[in-house]
Amino acid sequence: MTDIAFIQSLLRELDAFFRTEVGNRFEIDGADKSEPGDRVTDVDVAVQKYIVDRIQKRCPTDAVYGEEAGYDILPSDLSERCWVIDPLDGTYNFQRTLSPAYAVSIALASGGKPVAAGVLLPELALSFSAEKGKGAFCNGEPLSVSSIDSLSEAKVDVDFSEISRRSDCIGAARHLMENASQVRSTGSTVVALCSIARGLTEVFIHPCPQPWDYAAGKLIVEEAGGLLTHFNGDPIELFDGRSDLIASNGSIQRAGPLIDING
Amino acid sequence: MTDIAFIQSLLRELDAFFRTEVGNRFEIDGADKSEPGDRVTDVDVAVQKYIVDRIQKRCPTDAVYGEEAGYDILPSDLSERCWVIDPLDGTYNFQRTLSPAYAVSIALASGGKPVAAGVLLPELALSFSAEKGKGAFCNGEPLSVSSIDSLSEAKVDVDFSEISRRSDCIGAARHLMENASQVRSTGSTVVALCSIARGLTEVFIHPCPQPWDYAAGKLIVEEAGGLLTHFNGDPIELFDGRSDLIASNGSIQRAGPLIDING
Repeated sequence: MTDIAFIQSLLRELDAFFRTEVGNRFEIDGADKSEPGDRVTDVDVAVQKYIVDRIQKRCPTDAVYGEEAGYDILPSDLSERCWVIDPLDGTYNFQRTLSPAYAVSIALASGGKPVAAGVLLPELALSFSAEKGKGAFCNGEPLSVSSIDSLSEAKVDVDFSEISRRSDCIGAARHLMENASQVRSTGSTVVALCSIARGLTEVFIHPCPQPWDYAAGKLIVEEAGGLLTHFNGDPIELFDGRSDLIASNGSIQRAGPLIDING
Repeated sequence: MTDIAFIQSLLRELDAFFRTEVGNRFEIDGADKSEPGDRVTDVDVAVQKYIVDRIQKRCPTDAVYGEEAGYDILPSDLSERCWVIDPLDGTYNFQRTLSPAYAVSIALASGGKPVAAGVLLPELALSFSAEKGKGAFCNGEPLSVSSIDSLSEAKVDVDFSEISRRSDCIGAARHLMENASQVRSTGSTVVALCSIARGLTEVFIHPCPQPWDYAAGKLIVEEAGGLLTHFNGDPIELFDGRSDLIASNGSIQRAGPLIDING
């Protein structure tokens, strides 16, 4: 079984897990982690354990880097195969919004670059996947980004993120917020990235994502023809330690600057 | 049959209409109206026609005021019974997001005040209703707003709305965006208001809603214990011709000012 087939099989198992094991999401207890609003629930922990168990059984020598406790330390040798996991991106949405914008995100990186990726949006029954050089798919259908290249016709998704970075975020996103046709804030990085890949959003901006937030979404966007960079236009490497991200359909970013990096 | 029973029956019929008559929402054509991004589709038009036909059959002398063509002129005598309808609030979401945040909104006003209201979120199978003085309900369960009274624990929903009002909106919402625990932009006024009523959002701000955007949601929020005012704190009357709105769970708005009205 190839890596991508393994990921797709894992997404099917997780889909079944959400349908059978996760009850009413509004009744699930959660706790804030270090920052208010950065939540963890029993579902985050159980899904991470499920994924890690499956990976360790199949590939016992691969490294695992995931959002929740036990795996949130960057592996020492990033040139080796490393699975980068967010068991539930959008935990706050899951617990405390009507929005189904929460997702499981699984990426396999090799040499520090994502080479295979899968994302499951359980409530919308959407399964995204991508393999380096082989395209991106949603429920088996090939994905491609939109061709919109003008901000006045574009939809922009802003992640307001942590309170400590909020003011910087508003400064950087101000040009986008003032000039886009539509502005949304979805509250899940991986859902926003999959939406770009599916041609439903043109730009996503986040001041401080972690690698597990965008490892899978990066490959899915790129394989659908889109682009991810740092605010200053530098290409993003998964483990470069820099934490600002702008993702787009590519066309709109090549047409002109999207952000004022001086805020 | 009482007015509220008529509305609830109409919501059930519309639920069936969406399930049987509306196919893949991503394949529905739409056109911009006067402002880019302010869209109308065949579904908006068909749903308005369905609702208006049912109202005119039951209450032939009542006025009807609705978002789409034919009914978008304010009736001359606002002291009489007037139905205020948005056949699809969140049309852009419906056509071009993964989000199910779109809804049918129906209110009956009497003497210029909403007295009965119903809201249907077809994709989430949620049906909200409220009657003046008799509480608000979602799928039969009574609703009440959250008790959160501190912005640092609150979720805020910002409607960025029309591009021409975007800069004012960012100015007015800046304090909220910088200080709330969570910031979202859902893109549907009535969904944001129902979310407050259900205790899942503390504050919603919109620089320029129309009466059909909030007629039903206003009654649902108030009957769930929440509050709607203009930015300067004045109470909102449905037909007062002023178009800035801040809605909250009440507690948080009574604890201190939420916006800087000087931007």
